[in-house]
Amino acid sequence: MNELPDDQKAIGIFDSGIGGLTVVAEIFRALPYEKVIYFGDIAHLPYGSKSRNAIRKFSLQIVRFLLRFPIKMIVVACNTASADAIDLLQDTTDLPTIGVVQPGAIAGVKSSKNGRIGVIGTTGAIDSGAYQRAIRDRRPDVEIFARDCPLFVPLVEEGWLDHDVTYQIAERYLYDLKINGIDSLILGCTHYPLLKTVIGKVMGPGVSLVDSATETAKEVADTLDELDMATSLPIPPSHRYYVSDFSPYFKRIGELCLGRPLHHVIRVDLDQPDNIFDDFDHVSNIIN
Amino acid sequence: MNELPDDQKAIGIFDSGIGGLTVVAEIFRALPYEKVIYFGDIAHLPYGSKSRNAIRKFSLQIVRFLLRFPIKMIVVACNTASADAIDLLQDTTDLPTIGVVQPGAIAGVKSSKNGRIGVIGTTGAIDSGAYQRAIRDRRPDVEIFARDCPLFVPLVEEGWLDHDVTYQIAERYLYDLKINGIDSLILGCTHYPLLKTVIGKVMGPGVSLVDSATETAKEVADTLDELDMATSLPIPPSHRYYVSDFSPYFKRIGELCLGRPLHHVIRVDLDQPDNIFDDFDHVSNIIN
Repeated sequence: MNELPDDQKAIGIFDSGIGGLTVVAEIFRALPYEKVIYFGDIAHLPYGSKSRNAIRKFSLQIVRFLLRFPIKMIVVACNTASADAIDLLQDTTDLPTIGVVQPGAIAGVKSSKNGRIGVIGTTGAIDSGAYQRAIRDRRPDVEIFARDCPLFVPLVEEGWLDHDVTYQIAERYLYDLKINGIDSLILGCTHYPLLKTVIGKVMGPGVSLVDSATETAKEVADTLDELDMATSLPIPPSHRYYVSDFSPYFKRIGELCLGRPLHHVIRVDLDQPDNIFDDFDHVSNIIN
Repeated sequence: MNELPDDQKAIGIFDSGIGGLTVVAEIFRALPYEKVIYFGDIAHLPYGSKSRNAIRKFSLQIVRFLLRFPIKMIVVACNTASADAIDLLQDTTDLPTIGVVQPGAIAGVKSSKNGRIGVIGTTGAIDSGAYQRAIRDRRPDVEIFARDCPLFVPLVEEGWLDHDVTYQIAERYLYDLKINGIDSLILGCTHYPLLKTVIGKVMGPGVSLVDSATETAKEVADTLDELDMATSLPIPPSHRYYVSDFSPYFKRIGELCLGRPLHHVIRVDLDQPDNIFDDFDHVSNIIN
């Protein structure tokens, strides 16, 4: 499996479930010829309600699975796993391993002029303090206003991307950030880019929205360039999507996040990764 | 472990996580001297986004764990597991095994005069058609209006039990049920009893709300009586709560559902059930 030259290897990406596909979408945009192998840990989603130990265990298991393929890089497209397990993963493999927290935090710092930075995410991500630490590491003098927005993910999954109720909830969640005069707001959850319109209208034109997914895709492109690992073949690749369980909603929400149709979805039992269940017909049955 | 007489054995109850504690609360009210051993499968919550096969596997594993204790009955305090796995569990054990779907459906049928019955639940529960089938089995001539309400659980967990936004979302979800003139509405999700005030106001006084948790507790009491298994000792028992993972929100949301403080919470790894982690101090640390 190591016969392929680095540039022709794939990028291994994982998330606790479906939201990480917004990061994949940005990587597709930035790097249209890179092959992606995605793993969505639907059996364990959402990570936000699990313990740190559990998340480290799941992340390690997933990376071990991804390492069965010829990959050149690992992208942790999940805020919780980035916060809780990136150090462990970086110790486990020699491959460049990129999470979503660092690129988002760095872009947030860069885009703020007044040094008042907001960050929103799930309760788990905000409570972990990972963005807050990453921001302060970069620029210790900023003021950070963090807020969890637990209803945003279910609102996205309900498809209420531009609904009255979504505006009202956003007004409530973002009120403190607004009155504190932030000029940069990090969207610290993979689902949130789908609420950009609502969040942008609520925050007003003076606040830059920093999309961790876009920033992560830039970081992936830069790293591949630096390490001379970017593909030299301008051939549209076929990607692969693995999941630890089938959810009837994977296709609908997945295509919403990815912005294109989802094909080649394969279920695999991480406890027995040799048993790969290529159940695409079954998926088609349950999801169509 | 089988030395105890039946009446002194405990009731084993499980749920995908925390919501099943509303069923426990009703059992405490109806049967204050029965000992409860609860299992919350936090490592796998929510079941609604998992496949039927996964839910059957988890349910079986949990029941095998509960059978390590001297128990006299199994209560499946989870709508998804009741829908997907009750037949399997009833085949697996000789103990009386009660789910939340049947008692709720039967009470819904009883309380309807006009034969127009509504049922609400998570998308998984509604799509499974379990309540719809249970209602029709009892009374084939009724008209059933089913609706999934995916934002209700996150609204409860956010604590917005009486919030403007909750009313607006309820108005939207329940609109079709209202205009179709139902006179009985089954709350087919363990979290929904906490939204009774909102749902009651939205539906108006002509609609009876059927709480599956209350109905299940009645069924438990009746079954214990019939089988002569009810405890004869009027001693307040100490209950036990096992979870497959610790969530920092377990205590807050758990106490909301249970209506009383939660003690004796123990984490156990179902893959290695001999390793019981009595991490109560750890829980106290992370949840206080």
